[in-house]
Amino acid sequence: MPTNIEPRLPRGMRDILPERMILRRYVIGIIEEIFQRFGFEPLQTPALELSETLMGKYGPEAEKLIFDARHREGKEALSLRYDLSVPLSRVVAMYPELVKPFKRYQIAPVWRAERPQKGRYREFYQCDADVVGTRSMLADAEIIAVIYTILTRLGFKHFIIKLNNRKILTAIGEYARVPPALLGGLYRSIDKLEKVGSEGVHDELLKNEISPEAAERILALISIPGSDLRALSTPLGEVPEARVGIDEIEQLVSFVSDLGVAPDKIRVDFTMVRGLEYYTGPIYETVVTEPKIGSLTGGGRYDELIGLFTNRSLPATGTTVGIERIIDVMEELRMFPPEVGRTVTQVLVTVFDDDRQKDSLRIASELRGAGINTEVWFDTDGLGKQLKYASAKGIPYAVIVGPDEAGAGAATLRDLNSGEQVRVERAQLVQELDDKLNRG
Amino acid sequence: MPTNIEPRLPRGMRDILPERMILRRYVIGIIEEIFQRFGFEPLQTPALELSETLMGKYGPEAEKLIFDARHREGKEALSLRYDLSVPLSRVVAMYPELVKPFKRYQIAPVWRAERPQKGRYREFYQCDADVVGTRSMLADAEIIAVIYTILTRLGFKHFIIKLNNRKILTAIGEYARVPPALLGGLYRSIDKLEKVGSEGVHDELLKNEISPEAAERILALISIPGSDLRALSTPLGEVPEARVGIDEIEQLVSFVSDLGVAPDKIRVDFTMVRGLEYYTGPIYETVVTEPKIGSLTGGGRYDELIGLFTNRSLPATGTTVGIERIIDVMEELRMFPPEVGRTVTQVLVTVFDDDRQKDSLRIASELRGAGINTEVWFDTDGLGKQLKYASAKGIPYAVIVGPDEAGAGAATLRDLNSGEQVRVERAQLVQELDDKLNRG
Repeated sequence: MPTNIEPRLPRGMRDILPERMILRRYVIGIIEEIFQRFGFEPLQTPALELSETLMGKYGPEAEKLIFDARHREGKEALSLRYDLSVPLSRVVAMYPELVKPFKRYQIAPVWRAERPQKGRYREFYQCDADVVGTRSMLADAEIIAVIYTILTRLGFKHFIIKLNNRKILTAIGEYARVPPALLGGLYRSIDKLEKVGSEGVHDELLKNEISPEAAERILALISIPGSDLRALSTPLGEVPEARVGIDEIEQLVSFVSDLGVAPDKIRVDFTMVRGLEYYTGPIYETVVTEPKIGSLTGGGRYDELIGLFTNRSLPATGTTVGIERIIDVMEELRMFPPEVGRTVTQVLVTVFDDDRQKDSLRIASELRGAGINTEVWFDTDGLGKQLKYASAKGIPYAVIVGPDEAGAGAATLRDLNSGEQVRVERAQLVQELDDKLNRG
Repeated sequence: MPTNIEPRLPRGMRDILPERMILRRYVIGIIEEIFQRFGFEPLQTPALELSETLMGKYGPEAEKLIFDARHREGKEALSLRYDLSVPLSRVVAMYPELVKPFKRYQIAPVWRAERPQKGRYREFYQCDADVVGTRSMLADAEIIAVIYTILTRLGFKHFIIKLNNRKILTAIGEYARVPPALLGGLYRSIDKLEKVGSEGVHDELLKNEISPEAAERILALISIPGSDLRALSTPLGEVPEARVGIDEIEQLVSFVSDLGVAPDKIRVDFTMVRGLEYYTGPIYETVVTEPKIGSLTGGGRYDELIGLFTNRSLPATGTTVGIERIIDVMEELRMFPPEVGRTVTQVLVTVFDDDRQKDSLRIASELRGAGINTEVWFDTDGLGKQLKYASAKGIPYAVIVGPDEAGAGAATLRDLNSGEQVRVERAQLVQELDDKLNRG
């Protein structure tokens, strides 16, 4: 056996201890419930993929961040997955028997060797919902309704789901006659509108070698409010792709409203640009407006990605829900309901002494049988030590059965927050705890 | 963009498609519920650990199976975790502030580059519950009660939880005066009693270079039935460690009974040997007796493992629940309750035509709002195609709203298993579906 090893974590990795895991599980539980409410099915793929499956999908900068893996006898080049979209594309291509449209969700870790910083880790969970196999804008609308329902259920009040369409962005470039090599600079510039204002965008455009004439045309376009699709279609109408993009947005906004999403939560924004190369249609992003925190979800339609694995292209749309960010924000803003405690345990059954231990074990069994999360003290220490443990862990209630109680067929139920205690009949203990725990 | 890539999985890896994921999530859901019922808290650790954390813990044969990982700029030697016990030990050593006893569970994948075979994968889930920080046999008893409750809740009827004690195994070796170098052979031999009978064990012992005299002494011991601890303590009483081991088992059996475990599910078996080197006290294993399938859980007390990371040793005990095996067995034996369907979706709202689409979207929203998992058709295909989709996926109900129904403020609810359909008032639709889905 080796000598002592210093217990350490790899750089950029973290443990999630129970108190934070409980918050995490609460959030994930609600998200899964909503995904299923909309008919998205769970999928699991392995953490390790063939390297060739991942390479060529994310661009060279991103691919530098991929972790490779191997074992002693292994001949395959393996990598840890970088996201959940490429594995989904592989799955759809591998199993043509999957009934389409295929609606799936996956909540699972991905690995990226980014420079660690506060709130950013090299292993983090992604949480994706996608619909594969339909070009219907209703699929995009359902993704938006899912996002809306999740954020509302989690208690977010001031958020905006921004919509745009990749086709409109393409059309803006074409309309302004920006050469293809400069399109990246164009998109990066207009994406900054909210931050730097229209003069700032103008400067950015020139800095990105876009001609003053093109910059003028672009500024005129992006000054049109997103709600005024007609105003946009007048200048942009000369570009055929723009018409398709505008029609798609109109249809999307109408479906989203039929699905019950509050109209004030939706904003069409022609300057919203999402990073990933593979979007082909509507794109969407959620920002919390008060307090100002970054983007919580992002996604869009990607009709060509799956075609990389299979001969026929398959339309698809979907979103990533930024659960790591959501959990952090909810902790910062104390958005968790009070019933989400620091421990899963609802009651500690204390042990008075050796003679009473059997009693305590039987009470614990009975409470567990009734569905109450119960711990029982393992030894026969003084009551003080046992209650100190319960308080340290945040267990809300303790049951005490001393000789008095045992003789009278009773138990003492103590509220560890208030210090109040009541004596109850043994036969009433489950009911009493149920009432106090609001389990009805 | 690259040309088509053949979509493939690495050797020994698998995808879990929705139909099987639903079964998997059902099993994991029950297991988590029971863990929490007993006060075990969730913990998450990263998939990647420093290689030095894992090395020297599992023996050289096992360590050959570990996957190493790296990224382009990485200077640390990293490995994918091989089990959940060593990460737990690291966590306990790293965070001395964790309140003890520390009861945690973790359900997460581990990676082992074993030769792939039917039902055995290189990525599989482990599911562990452990108690750290108490020597009380009640902690071991609770682990056994957890196992009993889980298997009972999952519907297993004919299973036995076998108990033994590492200290008794050590004492048997000492009593028979087997030299330390031959102990491995001794344990492997007696572990085969059930399979090969006592004559077979005798042959095995001799084959393992154990002297005929020692073999006789061992055979006499292991012919004592496990229920007769007194009979065992007569010969073994001369070895002090045996007394401790026998006392521990006696106490354990008594606690297990107080916790409500049916006595016929518990069997003390002195010939049961668990592989891992690090057990120090009680060990336990569950086998299903009818039909004969291998071991479903295994665990025991390991009071020294955590000390490898920290100066003070911390007692601990726990079990692994073999969820991969449990899921396989439950599928083979068709043990899933009928309400666990092939899809999460409970109803498909069909779309009659463009004019009625808005109606369908509103009905879908209403059903979802009432907690019913609902899909709505994305396009305006014929009803036949929509119902075919629902049947292919195993969706149990469909809602049809044609012009007739819409005019009369009604909807048709169709049972896709029986083909029966009823016309219901729109206002009664949620109630009707709730009744049919038994959600009351």
